[in-house]
Amino acid sequence: MRETLAEWRPAVDDAIDDLVPREIDAEYLESFFGEPTYEYDPEGIQRALSDPLWDLLDRGGKRWRAVLFLVFVEGFGHDPTEYLPYACIPEILHNGTIIVDDVEDEASIRRGEPALHHVYGQDVALNAGNAMYFLPLKILTENPAGLPAEQRLAAYEMLMYELNRTHLGQGMDICWHNEREVRITPEQYLEMCACKTGCLGRIVARLAAIITDQPSEVEEAVANYAELTSVAFQIGDDILDVENSLGRAGEFGKEFGNDVREGKKTLLVIDAIEESPPGRAERLQAILEADTNTDEEVLEALSIIEEAGSIDDARERALELAEQARAEIDGLDLDEETSEKLREFTRFVVDRDT
Amino acid sequence: MRETLAEWRPAVDDAIDDLVPREIDAEYLESFFGEPTYEYDPEGIQRALSDPLWDLLDRGGKRWRAVLFLVFVEGFGHDPTEYLPYACIPEILHNGTIIVDDVEDEASIRRGEPALHHVYGQDVALNAGNAMYFLPLKILTENPAGLPAEQRLAAYEMLMYELNRTHLGQGMDICWHNEREVRITPEQYLEMCACKTGCLGRIVARLAAIITDQPSEVEEAVANYAELTSVAFQIGDDILDVENSLGRAGEFGKEFGNDVREGKKTLLVIDAIEESPPGRAERLQAILEADTNTDEEVLEALSIIEEAGSIDDARERALELAEQARAEIDGLDLDEETSEKLREFTRFVVDRDT
Repeated sequence: MRETLAEWRPAVDDAIDDLVPREIDAEYLESFFGEPTYEYDPEGIQRALSDPLWDLLDRGGKRWRAVLFLVFVEGFGHDPTEYLPYACIPEILHNGTIIVDDVEDEASIRRGEPALHHVYGQDVALNAGNAMYFLPLKILTENPAGLPAEQRLAAYEMLMYELNRTHLGQGMDICWHNEREVRITPEQYLEMCACKTGCLGRIVARLAAIITDQPSEVEEAVANYAELTSVAFQIGDDILDVENSLGRAGEFGKEFGNDVREGKKTLLVIDAIEESPPGRAERLQAILEADTNTDEEVLEALSIIEEAGSIDDARERALELAEQARAEIDGLDLDEETSEKLREFTRFVVDRDT
Repeated sequence: MRETLAEWRPAVDDAIDDLVPREIDAEYLESFFGEPTYEYDPEGIQRALSDPLWDLLDRGGKRWRAVLFLVFVEGFGHDPTEYLPYACIPEILHNGTIIVDDVEDEASIRRGEPALHHVYGQDVALNAGNAMYFLPLKILTENPAGLPAEQRLAAYEMLMYELNRTHLGQGMDICWHNEREVRITPEQYLEMCACKTGCLGRIVARLAAIITDQPSEVEEAVANYAELTSVAFQIGDDILDVENSLGRAGEFGKEFGNDVREGKKTLLVIDAIEESPPGRAERLQAILEADTNTDEEVLEALSIIEEAGSIDDARERALELAEQARAEIDGLDLDEETSEKLREFTRFVVDRDT
């Protein structure tokens, strides 16, 4: 999968450049946004849209959503180069959510550089992020692959379904974050992940299925695969944060026990509060609720999580989800090379520490 | 039109309540967002979505976008009650942009109360605003009026076109606001208004035309009507800010010369800088560029604008646009009652001071 990512990346970036060029001129604006009633200002649109978008993209990112889309297309027996513009849809959507999430989370750093709202101002960054929710959706209207109306409509309806659920997931996450008490169930945490992270994965898979006209059971199977893999990825992320921090107790630093410091209600925290003896559960809750914590207090919280067996439980859950994801793929009639790529991808997102 | 607004408002609010109820429960979530993979958290979604949305709606607003939509539907010879859910589309979209714009502009007050990000936190407000970009679009998928696929696809494509231009307009506006120098042309200012404000109006008109299956020339005429009226409205707003401030020089206050204070590049400012003698134009530019200004300096800027004849020029332009808007309606074969309502509506938005 690593090779596939590297192989496709230049072509993906070219396709994004066709959608939103690095250099905006009146000709592009007229062709993409339609004739102006009066007169466009290419200079302003350059700075409001193209500059922030390319700044973020040039900072890195593997474009894995675009490439996973192309892998699916190839797996369904079609030529991926014919569908390159569509690969931009999940990729640009994802980068838009990054910009908006960073404003919502008041993040200071993104991909090693100041978050976009610190570079361009909150107003420009937010508007660019929001524009990135709609720019790629217009590709379906432009219809570069000449899809019949039925498939275009199915794609729009799928996107509305998934983007609504994305905001539902983000809403739950934000709301829990602002609450002090940990009151949610593990199942609600998984739902949040399925919505917030999973829906963008589902868009990748379902879009590939829709535009290549797969039967609905295939679309459903690849959507489940993508959702399960995304949820496993999120749990893997939560585990990494706890394990990496425990692994270097003593050398405290900025990154030490980030999730606990932010009071995040991860699967591990929810599980530890359920499974710990009352006194320890209360202590964990108190540390999570506190506005600030010493490094020693953060370490104490991490130890409570570890002692409750919550790291092992979470890993077991992630492996179970990854297993289910692979089963969805095994049930399909894909060529062996594609199936192996997809299995490898699921392994990769869960075992990132190895 | 005033009566029409009052008459429809309760029905419109009921339709919005069907889309996003004041009280969220699991049953609603399953019916609107689909079966959860794991488990929803209705309590969290209540606070993340429904509370901010209804807080904003309950503060007032005439729901004129929804009602104008219903007026068009009736004018096209259809029963508006059959299309009430669709009336929510422009209304919810508009209220979503209000929440997001207030974050972008760092507004403190909205409809007489603290802006939503001050009440719910920036993260919740922003996510709710963004959710409101997608919630109403799902009505087309739910398809309460049983529209054929062709019309639903046309509606989605229209929405993507207009929402892309909305973000283009907001991008230009924000970008100019962050620039010190006034470098844009009057035509570029009008384009910004046509995109930022006009596109939501166009959505109202085009949606009514599409779902009642009007010929494309009718759709185009009502879209032009809505765009022209919106641009006239925006210019009227700019004129009001200058005239009201000049009318009560002496009693300075918070609202005195707001636009000048914010350094807004309105049509009046652009015109005044073009038409004033060099020294006066430079002085106006300097006041607009300054980080803070005394009331006397703001008054000086307003006087330069007045002396340049820019208020009269802008009013002439607004009346011209309103005239063009009415001509679009007169060219159509609508019943006299509808035509009169639409003409009255255009008069109302331009002559708000009378």
